[in-house]
Amino acid sequence: MKAAIFRGPGVITVEERPRPEITRPTDAIVRVVLACVCGSDLWWYRGISDHDHGSVGHEFIGVVDEIGAEVRDLAVGDFVISPFSFSDGTCRNCESGFQTACVHGGFFGRGADGDGGQAEYVRVPFADGTLVKVPGSDFTDQTMASLLALTDVMSTGYHAAVSAGVREGQNVAVIGDGAVGLSGVLSARMLNAARIIVLGSTHEDRHALAREWGATEVVTVRGDDAAKAVMDLTDGYGADAVLECVGTKESTDTAFAVARAGAIVGRVGVPHDAPVDAVDTFYRNVGMRGGPAPARAYQPELLAAVLDGRIDPGKVFDYVTDLDHIADAYAAMDERRAIKALVRVSER
Amino acid sequence: MKAAIFRGPGVITVEERPRPEITRPTDAIVRVVLACVCGSDLWWYRGISDHDHGSVGHEFIGVVDEIGAEVRDLAVGDFVISPFSFSDGTCRNCESGFQTACVHGGFFGRGADGDGGQAEYVRVPFADGTLVKVPGSDFTDQTMASLLALTDVMSTGYHAAVSAGVREGQNVAVIGDGAVGLSGVLSARMLNAARIIVLGSTHEDRHALAREWGATEVVTVRGDDAAKAVMDLTDGYGADAVLECVGTKESTDTAFAVARAGAIVGRVGVPHDAPVDAVDTFYRNVGMRGGPAPARAYQPELLAAVLDGRIDPGKVFDYVTDLDHIADAYAAMDERRAIKALVRVSER
Repeated sequence: MKAAIFRGPGVITVEERPRPEITRPTDAIVRVVLACVCGSDLWWYRGISDHDHGSVGHEFIGVVDEIGAEVRDLAVGDFVISPFSFSDGTCRNCESGFQTACVHGGFFGRGADGDGGQAEYVRVPFADGTLVKVPGSDFTDQTMASLLALTDVMSTGYHAAVSAGVREGQNVAVIGDGAVGLSGVLSARMLNAARIIVLGSTHEDRHALAREWGATEVVTVRGDDAAKAVMDLTDGYGADAVLECVGTKESTDTAFAVARAGAIVGRVGVPHDAPVDAVDTFYRNVGMRGGPAPARAYQPELLAAVLDGRIDPGKVFDYVTDLDHIADAYAAMDERRAIKALVRVSER
Repeated sequence: MKAAIFRGPGVITVEERPRPEITRPTDAIVRVVLACVCGSDLWWYRGISDHDHGSVGHEFIGVVDEIGAEVRDLAVGDFVISPFSFSDGTCRNCESGFQTACVHGGFFGRGADGDGGQAEYVRVPFADGTLVKVPGSDFTDQTMASLLALTDVMSTGYHAAVSAGVREGQNVAVIGDGAVGLSGVLSARMLNAARIIVLGSTHEDRHALAREWGATEVVTVRGDDAAKAVMDLTDGYGADAVLECVGTKESTDTAFAVARAGAIVGRVGVPHDAPVDAVDTFYRNVGMRGGPAPARAYQPELLAAVLDGRIDPGKVFDYVTDLDHIADAYAAMDERRAIKALVRVSER
């Protein structure tokens, strides 16, 4: 089969690899229909963080092609979405809704021997605990894109909003207008925020989608100026909930600076040299929650919202290619020509 | 009037000062009946943190002696408890339950010109927003001590538990068996924790009170050994909620180390060189909340619990003296001969 392989910073190749096989009776093999490239992939693509060379990609939806002897809830031919991590679904961390901390779990596409989602087939450990079956058939391209968004980006934006404790009627600040930030806007709207202030770039296409998804204000200045803008917009109090969707020191500092007393910063941007000020946050009773999104916990409710047309998170994809040209997708995202790239792998 | 005055590390004197006067129409003057010494006072008493020389003490209950022209909800003669901070009760931070961040508020007993609670009289700004009237009369010494505990220590322990999101049936770890940690144990019991593990000292009197208040296990080893002990007690998962009631680097590290994935560390120990690990906490989805307790937000419900006999937080006082001998109270707490010292100032 064909699979995207990381060969070093800036180098993604498509190579022939053996089709994965069932190695444990709880495994399933999924034939990938759609995959995509994650903003978090850019950290190692750009050489900022280390990553093993090998198979990559952790976002995929597809069709169950083969199941192990102990898989109970899935059958060959089922159309499924996967979270970006696999989880047994039975340990105490899974039961408490933090499947990304499953004691037997792990993440797809970590290079080396691990299975990647940017490939024609993926081995999925703990298939019953990991995959979510999609009911129905004959989905439009737009719905297919929205289902793909649930594998990571939309679930991650939703985790930021849930972690920040967004409630009806609140003023919410979203730091970042990348794919996750935009998904955070949509999530804050789902949770009935009254006002959604996005702190982002100067890319007008991002602003347009942000506004379509519920943003009431877009702030394009940065650092102290951005913090001042949010304080001015909130009568000097700050935002009732803050979604940190970037992970840099500047974005983290801004997130904590714009939080009102007692607010929570819901953080999903992987922290890169982004320390948390223990003292200032203490005196203002500003909290933080978040981390790798337990996408599996949110997928059932987000799937229902996609299928009944309440949300359309697939609009975040503004670049489409196929597996043979996936290197172009990485480059487009790296160069900020694309918010997020969808990769067609096979026909459903 | 007599007032306790901080004259430098280790030096508390009792001096004659002018009785405070109404300076704003929303002020009240309170005649102090009981005051006490706070664990947080020890930071500057020991010279670890800076503090202006002058009036000190932020915990007091007493009788309204005089009110300004705009005080509506209180009358001369009312018996009241005060939080350790004053607050207007009307700004958005007060309305959202974070009175310690009141935009017009402040803290009692910050030295210099500020009013201290370790004195015969205190001027209370925003009396309506700050003070809580106690219904009834003829309280026992034990009830009076419990009312005094609501001014700070019990409200602070409760804030740790609420911030940590303690819920029914959870395994809770409490870091610290000082007065706040013990109050945190009592608070976790109020919130129906199933199991309360205290990480503390080797003082058996503290263990006895912790167990009386609901602690199921007491861990007396420290650092990595303490973390390992909690992990062993929780099948390797860690505690569902953690109360950080100390504020040192070691206690903070332990608090985050014993939190299960997705748990929140409710922190009320004033951080002293206690950085938060931004990366490890992220990957485990461990959150943190907390800060100076909005005692005013909790006092109505805690007052009801004291008056109907459900809780007896005054048991934390194990040393009693009078205002003339308050220096002995500081010394007793500094030398860990006392958990917390009660200071009799006047008759009710």
